[in-house]
This record gives sequence, structure tokens and C-alpha cells, in this order.
Amino acid sequence: MKNLNISIAGLGNVGSAVVNVIEDNSSYWEKKTNLSLNIIGLSAKNINQERSFDIKKYKWVETPIDLLNINDLKPDILIELIGYEKDISYDLVKSALNNKIHVVTGNKAMLALHGQELFKIAEKNKVSLLFEAAVAGGIPIIKTLKNNIFLNKIKKISGILNGTTNYILTTMELQNKSFNDVLEDAKQKGFTSDHESKLDIGGYDAAHKLTLLSSIAYGGEIDFNLNEIEGIQNITIEDINFVKQLGFRIKLISETRVIDNKIYSSTKPKLISLDKPLANANNALNAINIVTDQLQNLYLEGEGAGGLPTASSILSDVFEIANNVDVRSIGYNTDQLTRYEKFDSSNIESKFYLRIRVIDQSGVLSKITSYLNEYNISVEKILQIPDSKENNIPILITTHKIKTSELLNSVKKIGELEFVDQNISIIPIE
Amino acid sequence: MKNLNISIAGLGNVGSAVVNVIEDNSSYWEKKTNLSLNIIGLSAKNINQERSFDIKKYKWVETPIDLLNINDLKPDILIELIGYEKDISYDLVKSALNNKIHVVTGNKAMLALHGQELFKIAEKNKVSLLFEAAVAGGIPIIKTLKNNIFLNKIKKISGILNGTTNYILTTMELQNKSFNDVLEDAKQKGFTSDHESKLDIGGYDAAHKLTLLSSIAYGGEIDFNLNEIEGIQNITIEDINFVKQLGFRIKLISETRVIDNKIYSSTKPKLISLDKPLANANNALNAINIVTDQLQNLYLEGEGAGGLPTASSILSDVFEIANNVDVRSIGYNTDQLTRYEKFDSSNIESKFYLRIRVIDQSGVLSKITSYLNEYNISVEKILQIPDSKENNIPILITTHKIKTSELLNSVKKIGELEFVDQNISIIPIE
Repeated sequence: MKNLNISIAGLGNVGSAVVNVIEDNSSYWEKKTNLSLNIIGLSAKNINQERSFDIKKYKWVETPIDLLNINDLKPDILIELIGYEKDISYDLVKSALNNKIHVVTGNKAMLALHGQELFKIAEKNKVSLLFEAAVAGGIPIIKTLKNNIFLNKIKKISGILNGTTNYILTTMELQNKSFNDVLEDAKQKGFTSDHESKLDIGGYDAAHKLTLLSSIAYGGEIDFNLNEIEGIQNITIEDINFVKQLGFRIKLISETRVIDNKIYSSTKPKLISLDKPLANANNALNAINIVTDQLQNLYLEGEGAGGLPTASSILSDVFEIANNVDVRSIGYNTDQLTRYEKFDSSNIESKFYLRIRVIDQSGVLSKITSYLNEYNISVEKILQIPDSKENNIPILITTHKIKTSELLNSVKKIGELEFVDQNISIIPIE
Repeated sequence: MKNLNISIAGLGNVGSAVVNVIEDNSSYWEKKTNLSLNIIGLSAKNINQERSFDIKKYKWVETPIDLLNINDLKPDILIELIGYEKDISYDLVKSALNNKIHVVTGNKAMLALHGQELFKIAEKNKVSLLFEAAVAGGIPIIKTLKNNIFLNKIKKISGILNGTTNYILTTMELQNKSFNDVLEDAKQKGFTSDHESKLDIGGYDAAHKLTLLSSIAYGGEIDFNLNEIEGIQNITIEDINFVKQLGFRIKLISETRVIDNKIYSSTKPKLISLDKPLANANNALNAINIVTDQLQNLYLEGEGAGGLPTASSILSDVFEIANNVDVRSIGYNTDQLTRYEKFDSSNIESKFYLRIRVIDQSGVLSKITSYLNEYNISVEKILQIPDSKENNIPILITTHKIKTSELLNSVKKIGELEFVDQNISIIPIE
């Protein structure tokens, strides 16, 4: 029997679920595997908060740093679930690693911004800093990339990495509500906070996660600055409904590729064809497509957040440590990592969806078509939507592939035409 | 740098792809990881067959067993891709293990039937017998279960584990062709052979794979006899088209659960709701749903066969061996495995699809309805399809949940009614 002593910092949804699962499953695990987990210390903001387990059964410490030494006992593993980008989380993790304590964390912001330093410290101290829970909740995407398909050459990773924005987009469509209305609902129901929702909606949380995936996939230094980020705050219910008529759904898609030896990591809303699984991964689901030299597509879908799914990922890291897996925390020795430059996204070629509002006058469709042609936008599909309530009418366009910079130039010119509303929706098509 | 010497037995699609990938990626791997793979010997049926690589660059041996000793050099790993259920594959793998050589294989039939013995031999000799390639082609399902979510309590695994049958069902629907026509096409195009297609179509190949998944999930002895198996040979194009009108698609679904401490492992055609990803995993794709105490659903989808995807799985096993992962080949010590009994499937509750042909006379729908009611079949949906060509007409029914044995009894009685065609389609709904 292998005994591991564990300290846990942070007892929100996920931390509490970890305690619950350890309590519920310890006798099952003793039969299933040779592993026994022993919680030697807990810490959280408030000892008096109501919890799903009996806090009195455990040693409580007021200051997280004391978790690293409980009555002269050093834990084998510290589980960090406080979740601050720096400050207390960073200090605690750094101290643990320097004390040769393995760390398991779900803290994507901290790793995306300070991972390069922290992984080096882990390596120097010959301990693991694992983070399955930091990306895509219950989907074991880190281990899939790092252990299961590490000998593949990754060509592209793309998917839905943020549950909150996916929930908002799904709810807008289902309830035919505006972005702001759905966001307010979500806040009132406690699904997301002001601070969280800024990171979620702005695309930053997904970009934090993508930063980690990109490093493992391409052996690059962890560098959040490589990300191109656009959130969902400008997505209108109007466009959600329009694109459905064209056979698409809008999703916040995070994508990472290497182009010309540079990293292209982008998080932005995109149109996904309704016949793709990604388009139907709704609500708080996360979903990821992986394309490699050997796999045309490997698709993983599962819960992107929540106590139990994330606890599953935390415990998978504990299991990896228990098995003495001789792999590096991020798949590489840190001195092996390449310092990639950022690919200039204006060079990306893509199909686009455009929604142009024009003054309702005869011949306007043929006018727009000829301007699109003049400005080198090759149209795949064009659809004029009748709208009796407005004195301008929307024209929906999907283009053939075009360089982003060219498209933006052309759209600018079209926006300057006198019969066109300057406010043109532009969303790339995956 | 870690150097591993490899022998490969069998150079079909998969074996050749393994050689190709090793040739193409070796310098990439040396940078990405500290691994160098060296092919020290090859063997296959016919040295003269045209191949995707230059056979002359390698040491060829006539008799596979000689792969275990190439000029007094013992390989670290034998890759077995001959694929016989017993005979030469079994003898070779057994000898390799007894000679303390790790084995990586894609041979599901051998493992489903003789795995219990072979895993014991591997364990005794302290070497690995790994088999990621044996289940679901390029999807890393074995490592997902054994390494990534091993601390989860698995409640249910279900999915599409055979690419050939999935391709046949998809093609029947797309081309509106009969089962036999599509099968003949597939044989003529060389997609499947007589022997292979018997295993595929009969559901045996999927059941071989399910046997392995079930063992890892529930810690049971490897026992092919626990499987309940029904193939796709009786699926008609008529039913494929009918169920689509009801919002379903027919898939060959393999499912394993523990019920009342017994194993229920079933491979049979089922109706999948079109809004589930599984229903849209078409052609040769494989796809798997995993439900656990911590995950409501983890869904994996990818190529179920083919050279490169399967090579990806073979190489993931090589990588696992290279990393000295201290986990057991099948997740457990073999003496830990439970000898499960088979759950009596007549006790399974399920919704069902029924297609009943009746003589076209007035009042027949209400007659059927009242008989269904009398025989305790609770109807969810009933649909009478007009058919001008036949003198009998099909009535489509989906039932509420009912015990399989009860349903079969009732259907038997309905088949005996004079205005009913005895030939009633019965397919469970997932």
C-alpha cells in the first residue's frame, strides 16, 4: 500500500469535492489500486462556512503556508485551489516546490502567467507541478497530450475551453435573449462573479488554458503574450439567429497552431458548422479537437467545470504522482522549451461571416454584390433578410477564404458607402 | 537519450505505418523527448510485397520467433501485429514475455481470449504487455481508463468500437442500399475480408474490445464469455430509414456495466437519438461515452482504424514503456482481478423500437394499440407509415422502459395475431 499525505488549500466547489471523493472512495481505491490518501491539513478563507463534509475531522490551519508543515509532518502533495493569479497562490506553490513537495493545482491564470518560472523550480527540486484541473474541467486533455499522444506531431488544437461563455451563448440562443440579460441572470444565480465573468467573457480564461495546451503541444515557453484574444461581449442575439439560418452556431473557439515557426494562438468567437460535434457541445460543456500527423481528428468532450469533474482531474494528477511517472510536469525539461514568436494574425486566411445592414432601397443587393466584388471579397453565400420593423435590412454573407487583413480593409471601405450602416458584424468561420 | 530496440512482427497497414512514423519522426522525437527508437528486426508473411518503406534498410527474419534474438541482441520491445487469435501471435507474445521483452500489440482477439494468462506471464516477468491499439484505433481509451481516470468509479462505458460496421451502416443510409449490397462493395474494395467481416459484422470484434475495456473499468478477469453479442446482419435499410423519421440512427453499440455485482457487457444494434454525438459519429469513426461517479459524461471520438491512427496508439505504448510508468499493464495486479458472473440480460430494462407489419385494413392501428396495452407494452410514440406497394403496412412504435423478457413475450404474442406479420423488428433504444 502506498500512503500519500495531502494538504488542501482552498475549499470552494472543487476543494470540497476533492475531500468528498477521497472520503467516499478511499476503501474502493484500496481495493482497486495500492493507494491510500490521507488528508493531513486543510485551509480556506472561512472555517465557519457550511460545507459538504465535517470540517472537524481534519486539521485546520489559518495560514495556507502552514499546510507545508503540519505538526512537523511535510505533506507529499499540496493541492492548491485558492486560484489567485499571484499573491497567496503563487507564494504557496513556490514554497511547496522549494520544500520538495509535489503540487497539484487547478490554477490556470497563475500557470499561464508564472508557469515558466514555477515549472523550473519544480524541476530543480525534482518534484511535480501538475495541472490537469486547470484546463477543460473533467476532460483529461493535459494527460492526453503529455502522455497518450506525445509522440504525435500536433498540427492544431482547437475547441471550447470556457464553460461560462458557452453557457451564455447557449442560453442566448435557447431563450432568445441579449448577452447582457443572460449575463445578469447568470450573476444573480451565482454562476459567475464580476471578477470571474470579466476573465471568462473577455476570453482571458480560455486564453490562459490555451497557453498551457500550446506549450505542451509545441514545446514552447509558457508565454501568455502569444495570445490573440477577443471575447463574446459583442455577440448579438441577432447574429446568433442569423447564422443558424446559414447552418452555423457561434462558439468561443480557442485555437493554437505553429505557422512559419511562430505560434498562432487565438481565442475568439467563430462560426461552427452545425454538423460538427463542436457546434453541439452546448451549455457548460468543453470540447477539444486535436489534429496530428497521425490523427485526422481526435475529439474530446466533457464537463468544463464543476466540483466533481474538476476533482476527477485533481485526483488523476495525484494518481500520476503516486505512480512515479517519469515524465516532466509539462512534458519537457524547461531548458528544452523553445521561445516562439507570435504569428501576425492579419496574415491568417479564413472564411468569414459578414452581417451588413443597408438602407432598404431597390437594387441594394446587387449594389453590395458588385462592391464586394470590387473589393476582392469572394462571396460563397449571400442572403437578404426581410425586416419590416427597421428601415435598414440585414444582408448576410459568407465569404470564401481570404486574408484577414484584406478582409478588414475591404469591410472598412464598404462601411464607408453611404447606403451602408457602418456597424458591420465580422466573425470568422472555423 | 533513452535508446529502445524494437522488433516488429507483421507489416500490414499498421506495421508499415509504425515503420513510416518512426522513420519520419525520429529526429523530431530526439528534440521533443529523450527517446530514440531503433528497429532491429522485421518479419512478415512476404518479404517481396510492395511496401511504403525500403525493406532493405532493416534486418529481415523469416520466422517471427527469431525477432526475439537478432544477432544475439534482445529487443526491448516486441510489437506484435500479426493479429491471429492464437497460434503464431500467441506463441510469439508468450515467448517474448517469458524472455522479459515488453510487448506492444493491437491484437484484441488474442487478448480477449487469452489475456488473463498472458497478463499473468507479463507480470511474473516484470515486463509490460500493452494494447492501446487493440481498442478504438487512434483513440487513447486504454490510457484514459488506466491512467487518466483510474480513481473514478466507472458506472458505464458505451460506444462504437467497430469501424467496419459503422461504415456499413453509414453507407446503407447514405446510398439507400441493403446490408448485403454494401458488404459486397466493401469486400470488393478490399475494406474487409471474409474472415474479418465475419468478426466485424457479427459483433465479435467489438465484443473482443469491450472485454478489455470492461476488465480495466471494473477490475474483472478477462472473460470473453461475459459478452452478449448481436451483429448488424439483420439490420434492414427499411428500419434505418424508418428510425430516422423518429429522430434516431442505428449504431452497433457496445456497453459494459456492473449490475448487482455482475457484469452486463452487451454488443448489439441500438437506436441513438440524433441529437447525441454518438449518432453522428459516422463512417469508420469510433466513439465512446464514459460515465463515472465524478463525470456525467466524458466523450471521445476518433478514427477507429487505419494505419496512422493505430500506429499512434502503438507508439503511445512504446512511450509509456520508455517512461518506466509504474502501472500494471491492465491497471491491476492479475491476482486482484474479480471473477464476475454474467448478468442475465433478460432483466435489462430499456426502451424499444418495434416495427410491426400488419395487413392493411381499417381500424388496424387501434387494434394494435389495444393489444399492446393488453400485453403491457406502454407506447411512447406510434406511427403508421402508408405504403402503397405492399398489402401490409408498417407500424412504428417506441415504447417506454420495459424489461427485455417481458417485451419479448409480448412481441411473441403480437406476432401470433392473424393480421400481423410474424417478422417484427425489435431494436433497443439507448
